[in-house]
Amino acid sequence: MTDVNRRWFYARKPEGALRVEHFELKTEAVPEPGPGQALVRLRMLSVDPAQRAWMMARTYRPQLMPGDFMPAFAVGEVLRSCTPDLNQGDLVEGDFGWQDWAVVSPRQVLRRHSRPPHPPLEQLVGALSITGLTAFFGLFEVGRPRPGETVVVSAAGGAVGSMALQMARIAGCRVVGIAGGAAKCARLVQELGAHAAVDHRSANFRAELKAACPNGVDVYFDNTAGPILETTLTLMNQRGRVVCCGAVAQYDRGDWGAGVAGVPGVLISRRLRMEGFIVMDFDHQRREAEATITRWVTGGQLKALVHLAQGLEQAPQALVDLLAGANYGKVAVRV
Amino acid sequence: MTDVNRRWFYARKPEGALRVEHFELKTEAVPEPGPGQALVRLRMLSVDPAQRAWMMARTYRPQLMPGDFMPAFAVGEVLRSCTPDLNQGDLVEGDFGWQDWAVVSPRQVLRRHSRPPHPPLEQLVGALSITGLTAFFGLFEVGRPRPGETVVVSAAGGAVGSMALQMARIAGCRVVGIAGGAAKCARLVQELGAHAAVDHRSANFRAELKAACPNGVDVYFDNTAGPILETTLTLMNQRGRVVCCGAVAQYDRGDWGAGVAGVPGVLISRRLRMEGFIVMDFDHQRREAEATITRWVTGGQLKALVHLAQGLEQAPQALVDLLAGANYGKVAVRV
Repeated sequence: MTDVNRRWFYARKPEGALRVEHFELKTEAVPEPGPGQALVRLRMLSVDPAQRAWMMARTYRPQLMPGDFMPAFAVGEVLRSCTPDLNQGDLVEGDFGWQDWAVVSPRQVLRRHSRPPHPPLEQLVGALSITGLTAFFGLFEVGRPRPGETVVVSAAGGAVGSMALQMARIAGCRVVGIAGGAAKCARLVQELGAHAAVDHRSANFRAELKAACPNGVDVYFDNTAGPILETTLTLMNQRGRVVCCGAVAQYDRGDWGAGVAGVPGVLISRRLRMEGFIVMDFDHQRREAEATITRWVTGGQLKALVHLAQGLEQAPQALVDLLAGANYGKVAVRV
Repeated sequence: MTDVNRRWFYARKPEGALRVEHFELKTEAVPEPGPGQALVRLRMLSVDPAQRAWMMARTYRPQLMPGDFMPAFAVGEVLRSCTPDLNQGDLVEGDFGWQDWAVVSPRQVLRRHSRPPHPPLEQLVGALSITGLTAFFGLFEVGRPRPGETVVVSAAGGAVGSMALQMARIAGCRVVGIAGGAAKCARLVQELGAHAAVDHRSANFRAELKAACPNGVDVYFDNTAGPILETTLTLMNQRGRVVCCGAVAQYDRGDWGAGVAGVPGVLISRRLRMEGFIVMDFDHQRREAEATITRWVTGGQLKALVHLAQGLEQAPQALVDLLAGANYGKVAVRV
């Protein structure tokens, strides 16, 4: 707890890799809610690769510019309310940013829980929120795998990747995870039930991926872009689908790179579909998807891996580490 | 007519642009049909950019290798039949290749017309055959434009492009054609009803394309790949669709190039779908599509432009010219 409001600002544009020095912490007074507003104490920040993408260019939101307050998806608790639509004790989620306190109006937030017991906070920014929903909608609405098909997931030790991999397994697919390093790969098989895992740092990456997919690749859930996408494209089956979910290999380059060899040639000759999406596009299906994911988590079929940092002051380092691939599972910061 | 069989072979692999010297003509005896076969006199060859792609790599068919007989889609007439499934005088289509005569079995051909009057032969390799069907299925099954949307077509003076452009106009879209040179662009507007046309050789290509699409681009029917695709991607609206039909800008490079900048970044941030297809994928819908196209041609809404070369000896030159963009409309060779 704190009786001031610490706020992280995006201070300097990185030339290459993001570093902690690109952010600046300022301390302000705790804001006062006006009529129709509520005061939220932040509890848990979601740390997402997309935050780095926002600095690069206009995406689905305006480009983040030096001097801007740092946005972030987060969960908090209503401590004081001046609106009948929110009550003290409500757990709410929204784009609250990297700070201790936020003043919100009801239409800026989604009320998650009104009274305890609450699910673990890290699940409210992970499996049961945008992370789990991103994996769910990307896999089932865009990738549309059928049982028995081979699904490959990159950054499979990451937040979305670890969810997508497990969901494809639940759906009866052969699932192959791509991750960096032998240790992560072993965990994908042992903990998450991947049928195989391939280290993209291996000198024989393509041969190993090919061996792990003896029937080719039907759905590729791409979180990385870059050379991993380029390689996997060459192993796609006819009528395969590429779910364009993220481009974490490119964010720290500071540009989108030269593109992917084989596009569009291989899309034509193998009739592939490559499709991007944003989790918000499926808001109307959210309740149903959350119910399904909750059932899987409660039933133990779906493990919600969490990589937790402690304290708002750690937020920049947590994002830097995420981009370097240091995490296994969902990265979150307890405020 | 000829009482020998002239046959063109793919003799040498081009390093860059295809030239006539990469082919070799041989003269053989007219083949004899065996039991269950028929002898076909070729009448019209379809000249297609895909023929150049076949030399580059395995596509939807095995790679063409030096020494191979040159395949080509064509229409011919049955002159002698030793099978009850084909009759003398039948017009048939199939992959008959660059030659005067072909011996075929009934399951290798599609019977188009049994008795006169026949439609013009050039329409049987153009509007009423794979060219028209490629435009039809690519536009309506992959691109799925809605009335009022903006559809951009590249190589819009080409065989498939000129069809796709007119079909999008018939479907009530704003249609913008991309072609090389002012003369072709003017014809797209005056003859084919494009709302605007843009010369991709212009130094201000992007600005001109943007001005021609004041509401952005909803569907891009891509026949070229390369820089034109890269530029058009930057003008796509959210949930836009890119129909990957051809890559004529890349075939004469001899490789697929470095890829397209913005893939997959812009696919994610604008939720785009990029999808390849092959006309054969839609064989089960062929009869219905042909009936629609025939109605449009007969009714004068759809113009079937033809760029005709005379004589089998001109086949290599016709393909070389096509790849250089010298044609306006469907390129065909009267045998």
